[in-house]
Amino acid sequence: MTGQTRKKQTTIDADRLHRWLSDLSAIGGTPGGGVCRLAASREDGLARDWFRARLGEEGLSVAVDAVGNVFGVAELAGPAAPLVLTGSHLDSQPSGGRYDGACGVLAGLEALLAVRRWIAQGGGKPACNLGVVSWTNEEGARFSPSTLGSAVFTGLVDTDFALSRADGDGVTLDAALTDIGYRGTDAPPPNVAAYVELHIEQGTELERAGITIGVVEGNWGTVKYIADILGRTAHTGPTPMAARRDALLPAAELVLFCRQISDWTGNALLSSVGRLDIQPNSTNVVPGRVRLFAEFRALDPTMLADACARFEAKARALSTEAVPVTLTRTVDRPPGVFDAQLRDLIEDTAKACGYASLRLNTVAGQDSIPLKAVCPSAMIFVPSAAGVGHHESEFTKPEDLAAGAQVLAATLARLVEG
Amino acid sequence: MTGQTRKKQTTIDADRLHRWLSDLSAIGGTPGGGVCRLAASREDGLARDWFRARLGEEGLSVAVDAVGNVFGVAELAGPAAPLVLTGSHLDSQPSGGRYDGACGVLAGLEALLAVRRWIAQGGGKPACNLGVVSWTNEEGARFSPSTLGSAVFTGLVDTDFALSRADGDGVTLDAALTDIGYRGTDAPPPNVAAYVELHIEQGTELERAGITIGVVEGNWGTVKYIADILGRTAHTGPTPMAARRDALLPAAELVLFCRQISDWTGNALLSSVGRLDIQPNSTNVVPGRVRLFAEFRALDPTMLADACARFEAKARALSTEAVPVTLTRTVDRPPGVFDAQLRDLIEDTAKACGYASLRLNTVAGQDSIPLKAVCPSAMIFVPSAAGVGHHESEFTKPEDLAAGAQVLAATLARLVEG
Repeated sequence: MTGQTRKKQTTIDADRLHRWLSDLSAIGGTPGGGVCRLAASREDGLARDWFRARLGEEGLSVAVDAVGNVFGVAELAGPAAPLVLTGSHLDSQPSGGRYDGACGVLAGLEALLAVRRWIAQGGGKPACNLGVVSWTNEEGARFSPSTLGSAVFTGLVDTDFALSRADGDGVTLDAALTDIGYRGTDAPPPNVAAYVELHIEQGTELERAGITIGVVEGNWGTVKYIADILGRTAHTGPTPMAARRDALLPAAELVLFCRQISDWTGNALLSSVGRLDIQPNSTNVVPGRVRLFAEFRALDPTMLADACARFEAKARALSTEAVPVTLTRTVDRPPGVFDAQLRDLIEDTAKACGYASLRLNTVAGQDSIPLKAVCPSAMIFVPSAAGVGHHESEFTKPEDLAAGAQVLAATLARLVEG
Repeated sequence: MTGQTRKKQTTIDADRLHRWLSDLSAIGGTPGGGVCRLAASREDGLARDWFRARLGEEGLSVAVDAVGNVFGVAELAGPAAPLVLTGSHLDSQPSGGRYDGACGVLAGLEALLAVRRWIAQGGGKPACNLGVVSWTNEEGARFSPSTLGSAVFTGLVDTDFALSRADGDGVTLDAALTDIGYRGTDAPPPNVAAYVELHIEQGTELERAGITIGVVEGNWGTVKYIADILGRTAHTGPTPMAARRDALLPAAELVLFCRQISDWTGNALLSSVGRLDIQPNSTNVVPGRVRLFAEFRALDPTMLADACARFEAKARALSTEAVPVTLTRTVDRPPGVFDAQLRDLIEDTAKACGYASLRLNTVAGQDSIPLKAVCPSAMIFVPSAAGVGHHESEFTKPEDLAAGAQVLAATLARLVEG
C-alpha cells in the first residue's frame, strides 16, 4: 500500500468491536446477563480504566476533565483545527443492559480508528480532529440529574453543582470520582464542530419496520419532579389512626395519579414514578418522610404542559398542614429537534453504505441533547430487540451494531473532511 | 446493720437508673436526641458491651445464648431454684427513642439489684433466683420477624431459622451477631417461673388518666403480611405505557386500601404499610419488583379476621398474569391476656408502693407475649409523653420511670419469695 492509493471507504473492524463489547460487558456483569455500572462506582472505574487503556494503546491523547468525562482525541488536522466528536456513556442502571451507552462509546472508538486509518491510507484530507468521549453519569441512576457530564461540558450545568450532587448514601460525585481516580484536572478539548452519537433505540420502530439505521429527528419533552412529603414517624402499633401523619399515603396517591394522567391521554403521554425514598422504611414505623421521583414525557408540548399542571394541582390538593407535600421541578427538557444538515448527512451516508434508514424520535434523554447547545448534534439509532431498555436482557444483533458503527464511521469521515 | 433487722421495703437507686439511661442513650445517639441501635449492629454491640460490663461489675453470672440474648443472674436460692426473670431489649428502630426497650432492661437491672440488697439485708427469704435479660431483635426493624430472641428462648421459633434471617443487605443474624461478638454459646438459664417486663406505654391512656402505673391486661391481635409484586424493569422513556409491567402500581393500591380498611372500622382497627422495598428504585426505570410490608392490629378477633379477608381479596384482585401479587402472612398473633395472678400482684404491689394503677392493653408486640408460652408473664407500663413511640422525641419523666422501677422491684421481691 502506498500513499498514492486513495481508499474510497472507511471500514470498521466488526470483530474487534464485538470482542470489545464482550470484554466490557464482563465489567460489572450481573448474573442475569446485564451490567451494573453505576456512575463513579468501582465498576464504572474499572470500565473507565479499560476504556482509557484502549485509548492509550491506540496512541490517542487522553483527557479527563473535572467531572470525569474521558476524551480520546486523534489529532488529524493540527492543534488549532475544530473537533468532530462522537461517544456516549459507560455508566448503567443498577440492573441495566450491556448495550445502552456502551455501544456508542465502543462504536465511536472503532469509527474513529477506521477514519484515522482511512486518512493514513490517503482516503481523505482532514480539516478537523476527531475525538471519542465517555460522558459521566448519563443515566442519572446514582446522581441526579441525568446527562450530567455532557451538561457540564456544554455549560448548561456548573461544575461545582455537578460535583456536589450526592447519591442515596450522601456520597458526592466529587468524592466518588476521587475514589476511582477520575476527578480529572485536564481541560476538555475545545472547539467542538459537530457531535454524532450512536445509541440503541430502546423502542420497537426499527424492529417493526425491518430497518437497521435510525436517523433521530428530535427528542420528546420531559419534565421530572421530586415530591418531598413530610409526615412524622410513629409506632404502627399503639398510635391511633387519627394521630398518624403517614407520608406514604400521599405518595401512593401520586403514584396512581401519574398513571391516570397517561390514561387520560390514551397513553400518548408517558409517565412514571420509578423511585420512592421512604424514611425510615421500617415495617412497624409510620413513614415519616417520603421523596418521590415522578416524570412525564410527550412529543406534544401542550399535552406535556397540561399533564404538569394537573400533577402540580394534585400535589397541592394532597398537601395538608399535618403532611405537607412540596414539589420541585428538577428537569424541564422541551421537545426539540437535532441539526437538520447532520440528520440529512447521516441519511445520505447510510444510503451510500447500502442501508435504508428510518426517521424517528428519542423519548429518552441522551447526551446528544445538551450537546445541541454548543454544536450541531445528531444521533444514529440501531435496533434493540423487542424495544427492551434498562433491563439485563437488552440485545442488539452484532450485524446491526456493526452496520451502525459503519454508518457512524462514514459520517465522521465526511465531517472530518469539513 | 445486722442479719436480725428485716427491711420492709426494696428500694431502687433512682439516681443511678437515670445516669444509666443517660449513658446508654449516648450509644447510637442521633442528632435528634433519639437512638439508632439496629439489632446486632455495631451500636447494638456497644450497648450490649455496656450492659455486660454492668452485669459483671455487680457480680452477676452472665450468659449469652446462641441468638445473642444476654442474661445476668443473681443466684439467691441455689442452683436448682426456679428463676424469676425481668428485662426487655436494647435494640431500637432506625430513628427510635431512648426509652423503648432500654427502660425495661435498666429498670430490670436496678430492680434486681434492689431485691438482692434487700435480701442481703435480711428483708426476705428467697425461694427463687432472679435474672435480667436483654432480648435480641425485639424491634424487627433489621431482621424480621420481631421479638425474635424471646421467641427462640420460648421455643416458638427455631434457633436455626432465627440465625438465618437476613437484613435488607442480605446479612444474616448469624453473621451480624458473630461480627459484634454476641453469637453466644451459653445455654440460656432454665426453669423460668415468672417474667415481668417494664415498658413505656407508647400510648396516651396513662397520661390522660394522670396515673403512673399501667397494669397490662392483654395484647391486641396482630397480623402482618409481605406482598411480593413482580413486574419487569424497563426504561421509563421509550417503553409504551401499555407494554409496562409496573410493580409499584399494585403496591400503591394496597397502601391506600390498608388505610381504607381502617376507615371502614371507624379507625378501631389499626393498619399500616411501613416499608416498601422497590427494585431497582431508580428514577428512570419502571419498578420491576416491590416487596410491601403491611400490618393490621385489633382487639376484636372478628374485626381482625375480616380485615385480613378483605386485604387478601384485594391482593388477589390486583394480581394479574403480567404483574402477579403474592401474599405471605408473616405474623399471626391472636389477641391474648397476660397472667391473671401476676396482673393482680402488680396492682396490689403498686398500691402498697403508694401508686394508683390503670388496666390497659398493649397494641404493640412485646417480648412478654412469647414468654407466655413458658411461664406466667405480665407487664408494667409507665407513661410516655403524648404517647410518642418509635420516634426520637420519646420521653418518660424520670420520676415516672423511677416509680415503675420501684413497683417492678417490689413485685420481683414478692415473686422471689415464691
